[in-house]
Amino acid sequence: MKIRIAIVGYGNLGRGVESAVSFCDDMELVAVFTRRDPQNVDTHTNVPVYHIDKAIEMKNDIDVMVLCGGSANDLPEQTPELAEHFNVIDSFDTHARIPEHFANVDAASRKGDKISLISAGWDPGLFSFNRMISQAILPNGNDYTFWGKGVSQGHSDAIRRIKGVVDARQYTIPIEEAVEQVRSGNNPELSTREKHKRVCYVVAEDGADLAAIEKEIVTMPNYFADYDTTVNFISMEELVANHNGIPHGGMVFRTGVTGFNGTNKHVIEYKIQLDSNPEFTSSVITAYARAIYRMYTDGARGCKTVFDVAPGLLHPASAEELRRNLL
Amino acid sequence: MKIRIAIVGYGNLGRGVESAVSFCDDMELVAVFTRRDPQNVDTHTNVPVYHIDKAIEMKNDIDVMVLCGGSANDLPEQTPELAEHFNVIDSFDTHARIPEHFANVDAASRKGDKISLISAGWDPGLFSFNRMISQAILPNGNDYTFWGKGVSQGHSDAIRRIKGVVDARQYTIPIEEAVEQVRSGNNPELSTREKHKRVCYVVAEDGADLAAIEKEIVTMPNYFADYDTTVNFISMEELVANHNGIPHGGMVFRTGVTGFNGTNKHVIEYKIQLDSNPEFTSSVITAYARAIYRMYTDGARGCKTVFDVAPGLLHPASAEELRRNLL
Repeated sequence: MKIRIAIVGYGNLGRGVESAVSFCDDMELVAVFTRRDPQNVDTHTNVPVYHIDKAIEMKNDIDVMVLCGGSANDLPEQTPELAEHFNVIDSFDTHARIPEHFANVDAASRKGDKISLISAGWDPGLFSFNRMISQAILPNGNDYTFWGKGVSQGHSDAIRRIKGVVDARQYTIPIEEAVEQVRSGNNPELSTREKHKRVCYVVAEDGADLAAIEKEIVTMPNYFADYDTTVNFISMEELVANHNGIPHGGMVFRTGVTGFNGTNKHVIEYKIQLDSNPEFTSSVITAYARAIYRMYTDGARGCKTVFDVAPGLLHPASAEELRRNLL
Repeated sequence: MKIRIAIVGYGNLGRGVESAVSFCDDMELVAVFTRRDPQNVDTHTNVPVYHIDKAIEMKNDIDVMVLCGGSANDLPEQTPELAEHFNVIDSFDTHARIPEHFANVDAASRKGDKISLISAGWDPGLFSFNRMISQAILPNGNDYTFWGKGVSQGHSDAIRRIKGVVDARQYTIPIEEAVEQVRSGNNPELSTREKHKRVCYVVAEDGADLAAIEKEIVTMPNYFADYDTTVNFISMEELVANHNGIPHGGMVFRTGVTGFNGTNKHVIEYKIQLDSNPEFTSSVITAYARAIYRMYTDGARGCKTVFDVAPGLLHPASAEELRRNLL
């Protein structure tokens, strides 16, 4: 009996889940739900598309509902709403609001006698539990996180709002000297400017004041002012040809010492390089969908996070096979 | 109420656990057990030392027994024997015999209504679950593991058994070109010789036939014949001055593709660099001792592995704090 998955929201993330599920022999995608007119949504695998209002009447046909909406506007309401009727998983990534979101989703899941998991993905997600495990192993030490090289949607949007800008991509890039200092175990103190730089590719309107646009970008508070920022003006053709992907990645380091005199240094590094941020995130979510369904059939209820999931539950193989082949 | 830890076996690993526990506010070391005469064992923290025969009469004073013996001769008998009376954890690392060891320890723990965890450490351990999680996330891909730079005790011992050799250290070193090929996502096929090289530092007897020793090393089946091996003859003084540490480390990679046409590549890398292999291993074991004691108080029984432990249980902070500060 395969785990019956449904997707809510058919954007980049939803399409990524559709693809990830297709490569999992123990899962099948049974429905996509959308707020749009279902007639206008063509799925890659021809899985049926329904309006989101039809979801609850299909509650007995779905084992885990994967919520692929945005953290700003969709998930804060959608996840608790659906958590009462379905086992649900989301990738809520507004770090500061996680405790509040957790409380809301937990209450709904418990009311409906269901399980849920919030904030699956890589950050929050894989990065979170690597930071956490490494802290537990090396209590005397420091954490460092670097993001990129990757496209930041928020920073790209901020540039697009500037007068005279047609389109833009912003890459967040770790500064290699800082990474090497951390990797060497030197425990450097690093300012914001020393850790990351920002590189922008901007398509401007004909006749726009390029110097003014550049100045507005590099001095923008919160987004760019604290970083060394490079602005490149390019044509729309070049943007489409060279900057149409959604790569991302990053590194989590823990550097610490052990021993009574604290002289033995250790460095733990977790690094990912992703051609497609949404497809990788979807793949993480899909593995966690498997895990929470197993926890549900084993009696677990309420809201979970990546911290609560035993890693063996993520893998399709049995516990016995995992011990024999992967331990 | 602190978690009361006891150590069985006071070698490098046992001393590492003593140190690791001293940095955990929620744990206290209450006893060291030894097969030697306890009078002759001086602990760093002056924790009481008892003969191993006294262990069972102290079963009510100990929450988790950390077994620090060797996988070849000690643990196969010691872990099941003590698992009937104590919650126990070991670092059993003979991969091929894990299923058998698991079965024996599981039966003993269940008989005594206790919990146990085998094969804690970094390989098996952290490397195992990184390989496993990454496979679960990227089912279309390849695994690569590199070990080192680090001292291999088994290979050093093999050299010491050669006629005319006084002492020796053998370093296993990943070949940087192979690592870079993997890191670039090229999915190379790598032979044993292409992945690691071996570098040996040998102290020979006065007048020994150095050419014969070198030939015996580099042609030794299983240990050296399949690798490019370099032999350096050095003085005992130099060995003690420059090769007295026990560094180790390594990397686990998963490289894979996502998407229906499989064009988006991803690389996950987990890398550790350790000044002291035994002190780091002890630190991992200590965190897992905390985790299994929490699982025990929550009702779990029988033998576990790193695959069965929810990561949040490793960290001293509460689930709520972890969600707020680390997710």
